[in-house]
Amino acid sequence: MARINEDYLKLKAGYLFPEIGRRVSKFCAENPRADVIRLGIGDVTEPLAPAVVAAWRTAVDEMASRATFRGYGPEQGYEFLRQAIVDNYYAARGAAIAVDEVFISDGSKCDTGNILDVFGPDNKIAIPDPVYPVYVDTNVMAGRTGPADASGRFARLVYLRAGAETGFVPPLPREHVDIIYLCLPNNPTGAAATRDQLAQWVDYARAHQAIILYDAAYEAYITDPTIPHSIYEIPGSQEVAIEFRSFSKTAGFTGVRCAFTVVPKALMSTTSTGDNVALHALWNRRHTTKFNGVSYPVQRAAEAVFTPAGAKQTQAVVDFYLTNARLIRDGLQKSGLTVYGGVNAPYIWLQTPGSQSSWDFFDVLLSKAHLVGTPGSGFGAAGEGYFRLSAFNSRENVEEAVRRLQSLVA
Amino acid sequence: MARINEDYLKLKAGYLFPEIGRRVSKFCAENPRADVIRLGIGDVTEPLAPAVVAAWRTAVDEMASRATFRGYGPEQGYEFLRQAIVDNYYAARGAAIAVDEVFISDGSKCDTGNILDVFGPDNKIAIPDPVYPVYVDTNVMAGRTGPADASGRFARLVYLRAGAETGFVPPLPREHVDIIYLCLPNNPTGAAATRDQLAQWVDYARAHQAIILYDAAYEAYITDPTIPHSIYEIPGSQEVAIEFRSFSKTAGFTGVRCAFTVVPKALMSTTSTGDNVALHALWNRRHTTKFNGVSYPVQRAAEAVFTPAGAKQTQAVVDFYLTNARLIRDGLQKSGLTVYGGVNAPYIWLQTPGSQSSWDFFDVLLSKAHLVGTPGSGFGAAGEGYFRLSAFNSRENVEEAVRRLQSLVA
Repeated sequence: MARINEDYLKLKAGYLFPEIGRRVSKFCAENPRADVIRLGIGDVTEPLAPAVVAAWRTAVDEMASRATFRGYGPEQGYEFLRQAIVDNYYAARGAAIAVDEVFISDGSKCDTGNILDVFGPDNKIAIPDPVYPVYVDTNVMAGRTGPADASGRFARLVYLRAGAETGFVPPLPREHVDIIYLCLPNNPTGAAATRDQLAQWVDYARAHQAIILYDAAYEAYITDPTIPHSIYEIPGSQEVAIEFRSFSKTAGFTGVRCAFTVVPKALMSTTSTGDNVALHALWNRRHTTKFNGVSYPVQRAAEAVFTPAGAKQTQAVVDFYLTNARLIRDGLQKSGLTVYGGVNAPYIWLQTPGSQSSWDFFDVLLSKAHLVGTPGSGFGAAGEGYFRLSAFNSRENVEEAVRRLQSLVA
Repeated sequence: MARINEDYLKLKAGYLFPEIGRRVSKFCAENPRADVIRLGIGDVTEPLAPAVVAAWRTAVDEMASRATFRGYGPEQGYEFLRQAIVDNYYAARGAAIAVDEVFISDGSKCDTGNILDVFGPDNKIAIPDPVYPVYVDTNVMAGRTGPADASGRFARLVYLRAGAETGFVPPLPREHVDIIYLCLPNNPTGAAATRDQLAQWVDYARAHQAIILYDAAYEAYITDPTIPHSIYEIPGSQEVAIEFRSFSKTAGFTGVRCAFTVVPKALMSTTSTGDNVALHALWNRRHTTKFNGVSYPVQRAAEAVFTPAGAKQTQAVVDFYLTNARLIRDGLQKSGLTVYGGVNAPYIWLQTPGSQSSWDFFDVLLSKAHLVGTPGSGFGAAGEGYFRLSAFNSRENVEEAVRRLQSLVA
């Protein structure tokens, strides 16, 4: 008789965002006339840049004619896009990443989960708390944890508590770990790491022969010019870090689907007998065996992000969301709330008023102010008592949301 | 120190198609004036149907305006596409598949690999030989096999030898197995199973509480009206089968990327303590946690395959490839070669002349006739001495390829 993967049964019933969706749907069904404003899931709202749409349309048209039709592309992505990424994101910042170290994919969510495939089962894994819940969930599903305790923390994982005391940047582990997830600028707290803080992480990883899984999905929102956009701006990092990047928040691609992962060829890991193996070769094998490349016209759309017009247009949308973030942050601070983030990230992280639990505040906010946010506890035990608001919305909705929050708190 | 997944080291260096690519590139570099015709990798060559392109273009344009822009869609796919699939592929054939049993994805290659995530490590897995090599490779990578023997067969897998003696349809296993891959119409042999043969498989699975992973990527090429297009045409199959389907070969989507997997809610598997768990819930959890949906405009393009114009246009392309297949099959038979397939599939499966090994014939064909095919041994040990030719090419190239093959054999 076929047996299931019982590790799935360790997970709580709902992934965070479906659970929010269920509560919001229920509320809307019961209150059909409520004007609900959604600052919950981190999903963009503004249309794609005209340069991106134009390139996409042209590539779709290529598929209509035999001479320009394209079937299977390279699983790792077309060179035109990999080269544009290397030139604009890495060479431009002094990081010597080669074109064949860039793997185009359909999403960083997929890649941060899939990367576990190339690692053995016995690695000690450190995960910040709070953080994007997919890291924990995919480790549970892959059998890399024990069961959860009452606070929802899973045995065998090393949680790196990132609270207000460290500015929400994860502290170095006190013990040895083998693999470390970092999400900077952070989802959900909006915290960004300084160059010195990142360099300490690279030093730790080099000293422990550990590997950093660096999720930089929000780098486009960094406004402080001293903060690195890529971990590869830190010398020595290519021997210890894999970087995940996405067009989702940079260029509004959440419904378009394009991302990439960088695996430097200098990055080694070992077998149980101590032989060094390049992770690049393993990831390449995984990527070519279990993935078939990103839609060709989507890769052309992503390439257009790097044209002068595309860069200017996508930056204008990022700036628009950053202004939203400032309005939320300033508005809540004026109401006396304790607020973090919103400067180098599209997320505002607030302490719930009156020490309410995160989900209690969620329910109050939804029922009294018709606002949807994300409970901090959904990102980990250390997120309890906090709440995430996203800056992805229209200016009108953001201003209205701030007014409603201010009157709720008053 | 971080440790690798050592199961990857059990794999041979190259996935089949990259190895072919390397040999062809080398030949072309050394013989730049050779007019090489590629009947190797099963990749389509004809442009997309006009109805598909029109729908795709319209959806891209929606992304350019705030009112019609779409961000994250449902991970499982938009209902408009899931409903069209249910209506046209299942209800139309008497199979009662529900909309929420259909999971849209970016490819069947991904899905047939990813499905292993929801199964425990101790299942006994049966794989036809020869067959699409991704099934074996993903089992090896997931640690579900021992090492390979001299013939390339991996310990712990049960190989179902599908040779000429069974018309290349896999025979039922003589022992108990828990999970069975079936690829019908078959890649690479082009064999299709009759309704009776499929019913025997469903009976076996029901008797053994086993699960069939049914890859029907080539169903659009079935010309014999008595052959089922879906395993769900067999009564009782919803309790034992998962079906993988793709738009790649049906509608020329190899570079577009859209597929789907059906997991019926009636399909149960068990825990080690004997509790029944619906695989639908596990796959849904995997899909929502490790995947973020298919590009919205691509889903609109796929939906257009089911419009009257789209259906007619895509069928015309399938018919074109089927005529190519017939020309290859007839041409090789006239030359005295022993040939299979090509009737209900876009693949022709031939015995290599003079008992040459599959790779020797590959090299001869490339160097003497400037033709690229796929060595049968790349699909499993039982494929040795056979060779696959694909019907995906222009009529002109197919006719020229047949001429070259005939003179090579003569």
